[in-house]
Amino acid sequence: MKNVLIVYAAPEPKSLNGAMLAAAISTLKGGGMNVEISDLYGMDFKAVLDARDFPDRRDTVVFDPAAEQMHAIATGTIAPDIAAEIEKVRRADLLIIQFPIWWTSMPAILKGWFDRVFAPGFVVNLQKGQVYGNGLLRGKKAMVVVTAGSSAELYSPAGPHGDLHQHLRALTHNLLEFCGLEVLQTHVVYGAVGIAPEDADREIERYVDRLLAL
Amino acid sequence: MKNVLIVYAAPEPKSLNGAMLAAAISTLKGGGMNVEISDLYGMDFKAVLDARDFPDRRDTVVFDPAAEQMHAIATGTIAPDIAAEIEKVRRADLLIIQFPIWWTSMPAILKGWFDRVFAPGFVVNLQKGQVYGNGLLRGKKAMVVVTAGSSAELYSPAGPHGDLHQHLRALTHNLLEFCGLEVLQTHVVYGAVGIAPEDADREIERYVDRLLAL
Repeated sequence: MKNVLIVYAAPEPKSLNGAMLAAAISTLKGGGMNVEISDLYGMDFKAVLDARDFPDRRDTVVFDPAAEQMHAIATGTIAPDIAAEIEKVRRADLLIIQFPIWWTSMPAILKGWFDRVFAPGFVVNLQKGQVYGNGLLRGKKAMVVVTAGSSAELYSPAGPHGDLHQHLRALTHNLLEFCGLEVLQTHVVYGAVGIAPEDADREIERYVDRLLAL
Repeated sequence: MKNVLIVYAAPEPKSLNGAMLAAAISTLKGGGMNVEISDLYGMDFKAVLDARDFPDRRDTVVFDPAAEQMHAIATGTIAPDIAAEIEKVRRADLLIIQFPIWWTSMPAILKGWFDRVFAPGFVVNLQKGQVYGNGLLRGKKAMVVVTAGSSAELYSPAGPHGDLHQHLRALTHNLLEFCGLEVLQTHVVYGAVGIAPEDADREIERYVDRLLAL
């Protein structure tokens, strides 16, 4: 494993997420890996999949997103900002998807990255049954890294919020595994809102240990 | 129940979702209800929660989204497009949240509507324990209405995708119920990609029946 792409969706560099990103970059580079970053807020990444993503429409009357995605991938006509992200994913052996949990899922800007970049034809091919074990991203790995405001108790299977890992299966299983990626265990920092500085330091250290053990 | 807000996140009016929206509007109005629509694609709704949403920052050095949301709600200084959506939610007795399933969850533009409009201080108050049964939207109802490309079999509990209703709990339970809304059963149209016209007609009829029974 040599090339890592970190897809990062937090708006404030001076935050626990920002510190975790910085620690990851230096740890991975220190381990001899090539690291690319998609800092979605920093890039002002366009979050919304829409007809403007397809300069060479297959059907200019009715907009069918998945059909236009298949066509644009096949013809190499997808919007340049999407094409650049696709190249980053192609180069990566490991995707790290890092974000603060907002409403038990991804911030919109990250959901939009998947909506736009994970185009049928690039990540899966439904017509040919290329999903899950035959997904087009097979051979690559993914790790989801999140901070959650609530405690592990609130997110336990019997807690009021339910099991966070179960909620994240829409991402880890139905999206990442669906595309053929091997998904590593999700790394969660609970209780991240108002975390004490010494606890934040401990969490950064725990994340670095996790990365060193990859 | 008199006032209905339909929050709608599909990009193409000439689609099954567009037809379902039109049927809902005429059915609900025919039943004497006031209907407001937030057509997020039609409005070109800003999907990404960021510092620009807060013209009167509480802290201009470090951007803490939840803290800025609390401050902006308390001081009435939130961005005008968010304030307008908040007023629509305030007026509504029932929220209908309608979208095509993309990657087993909401299109980014709808996730962003929740990220931006469902601000702490408006929908919940964590400091005061105003969540779930004490959530600030208690007394209102919500219904999630989705179209899914995959079949009901693929989304069954033992199927490869897992139970769609379980995946949607991040929305129905951890978001809507968390804010105090009473959540009605989710209305799902399976197999919506490439659906035959007669099946689409039958699904629209089934949706109208559901709305008439509210």
